[in-house]
Amino acid sequence: MSTIANRRWVLAAYPKGIPDASAWRLEEVPVPRPGPRQILVRARYLSVDPYMRGRMAEGANYAASVRIGETMHGGGVGEVVASEHPDWRPGDIAESMAFGWQEYAVLSPDRTGPGGTHRIDPGLAPIESALSWLGMPGMTAYFGLLETARVRAGDTVLVSAASGAVGQIVGQLAKIAGARAVAVAGSQRKLAWCREIGCDATIDYKASGDLLAAVREACPNGVDVFFDNTGGPIQDAAMKSLAIGARVVICGRIAQAARFGEPEMGERLLGSLIVSRASVHGFLVFDWYHRREEALARLAAWGREGRLRFREDVLDGIERMPDAFLRLLDGSNFGKQLVRIAPPA
Amino acid sequence: MSTIANRRWVLAAYPKGIPDASAWRLEEVPVPRPGPRQILVRARYLSVDPYMRGRMAEGANYAASVRIGETMHGGGVGEVVASEHPDWRPGDIAESMAFGWQEYAVLSPDRTGPGGTHRIDPGLAPIESALSWLGMPGMTAYFGLLETARVRAGDTVLVSAASGAVGQIVGQLAKIAGARAVAVAGSQRKLAWCREIGCDATIDYKASGDLLAAVREACPNGVDVFFDNTGGPIQDAAMKSLAIGARVVICGRIAQAARFGEPEMGERLLGSLIVSRASVHGFLVFDWYHRREEALARLAAWGREGRLRFREDVLDGIERMPDAFLRLLDGSNFGKQLVRIAPPA
Repeated sequence: MSTIANRRWVLAAYPKGIPDASAWRLEEVPVPRPGPRQILVRARYLSVDPYMRGRMAEGANYAASVRIGETMHGGGVGEVVASEHPDWRPGDIAESMAFGWQEYAVLSPDRTGPGGTHRIDPGLAPIESALSWLGMPGMTAYFGLLETARVRAGDTVLVSAASGAVGQIVGQLAKIAGARAVAVAGSQRKLAWCREIGCDATIDYKASGDLLAAVREACPNGVDVFFDNTGGPIQDAAMKSLAIGARVVICGRIAQAARFGEPEMGERLLGSLIVSRASVHGFLVFDWYHRREEALARLAAWGREGRLRFREDVLDGIERMPDAFLRLLDGSNFGKQLVRIAPPA
Repeated sequence: MSTIANRRWVLAAYPKGIPDASAWRLEEVPVPRPGPRQILVRARYLSVDPYMRGRMAEGANYAASVRIGETMHGGGVGEVVASEHPDWRPGDIAESMAFGWQEYAVLSPDRTGPGGTHRIDPGLAPIESALSWLGMPGMTAYFGLLETARVRAGDTVLVSAASGAVGQIVGQLAKIAGARAVAVAGSQRKLAWCREIGCDATIDYKASGDLLAAVREACPNGVDVFFDNTGGPIQDAAMKSLAIGARVVICGRIAQAARFGEPEMGERLLGSLIVSRASVHGFLVFDWYHRREEALARLAAWGREGRLRFREDVLDGIERMPDAFLRLLDGSNFGKQLVRIAPPA
């Protein structure tokens, strides 16, 4: 086993703003051996997600940074190829946020919480779904919209990055909840997909000259729930359009990626909350992993009923990991960005 | 009755920024007569409150503006001098937010909600308490801290304008709830009072060069509840010091008074909520008037037990209404600002 090479991306430097490819280095190392109660998993799909930008910084965020020379953090799904754990055997499919940007990972299934290892049923859905709508992004939409925002029938739900990994599910869950879904994205192609999966109205934030006017036109009775994956000008327009008692979920801030770590300057809108009596909630899906089973069971059921559809954007080969991540940061991905890792020839 | 003059302050112009005395005009008109199911009340105390600035503007806020030439809106407490309502008789004490800046008001006791008329028991506490800790400001602290912020034992509660009408009660309710209270105010004299009523730590925002360092020193485990009566730099320092799961109540924005109606520019801190998973709530006490009796009964009980103390700042004579209001806007009041209206000689 250890004569096969494991290719992995390590962090080469802490970048400023939007990283370029020099932030990482592809290394070839021997495939590691699993220790007691560990498993060795060969990647089939690796995920890139916006949170990874936060890990590429010296300052502490909600999670520890990736150290220089350390394998990039990230989720993956793959096939068990060796097991020293009594509950796992070769051929099982495992998913973990602790996979890393690499072809082979040693995982510790006894670990619990967000970094745990989960057994994936390949009969339920394509296994890469465990990185998207039946995984962390799906749970983000589920808990953020249903629990944190407490969406109700009749609400107008505005979602930014609406064709993204989380946004697609937010729009569809809003419809399942009996709400009206208004999608914001950066191209007509993305918005056509949002309409296809049921969104009632769409806003092209790149083409709308006056974003505030566009939000108010699309949400004539105000925004009851704003699910924010971007921050920036979309957030401003939404915050100025809140209905009385609105709930805002601050889930992502991809619009700030180019100025990562810098203070974000602009108009401050907290004072206006006194008028709307709205609530703004910072959201982190890792707080909800104790309810993972419940969320995934319900998402899977809606999927089986045809009420949830999902679009992925797949690149091939571990070489493409930086490209995939950079596509996410500049919005050129269309749907959940994944990288497929080919099995060895 | 109609031969006695009623002096009243009407709005003369919509001011920019901090108003000066030219914003109002003192008029003398005949005392009005109560219609069917109305009462005529002679003012004993009138209130000035920060929300009045919002009514002195053409744009709609959460409540309608005062029209030019209309009597300024405001709460008052006084003695019934004539009644056309079967439940009220001369000598009764009445409080209403619909009183206005005037010596005599005709009130409609059948009206419900925040603009309703409430019977005040003069044996319970000095009647002016109905404008402060046993009235709207007391309810603001009560519902804002106990319901919206859901304060818990062990929390660190940071309150701005801590010696003000609402702030004094917030600090003391925090202590009653078993929390630690940290007071922010603009003078050592005000902070000495905050310590006297039980606050554990104090911050002089005018004397603290580095407000962020001062907040972090006073709240070494972070701020669990921030009760914000001011906005501005204190809000910034607090928002950068939130503990995981913190709750922020946006109750007032007196720091913005000088730039009223202008956009508030500065550092935007919503993105940081993803790290703290905090919630920010716009708060308006008028949403809670259906629970007025409960709040006032509990506040009164704590007052009887000596667990709530309250400081007022009283000017004499209806002529002083603009002065009193302007003292509030520049922070030169010390405690709840009231104006005592002398009975006619």
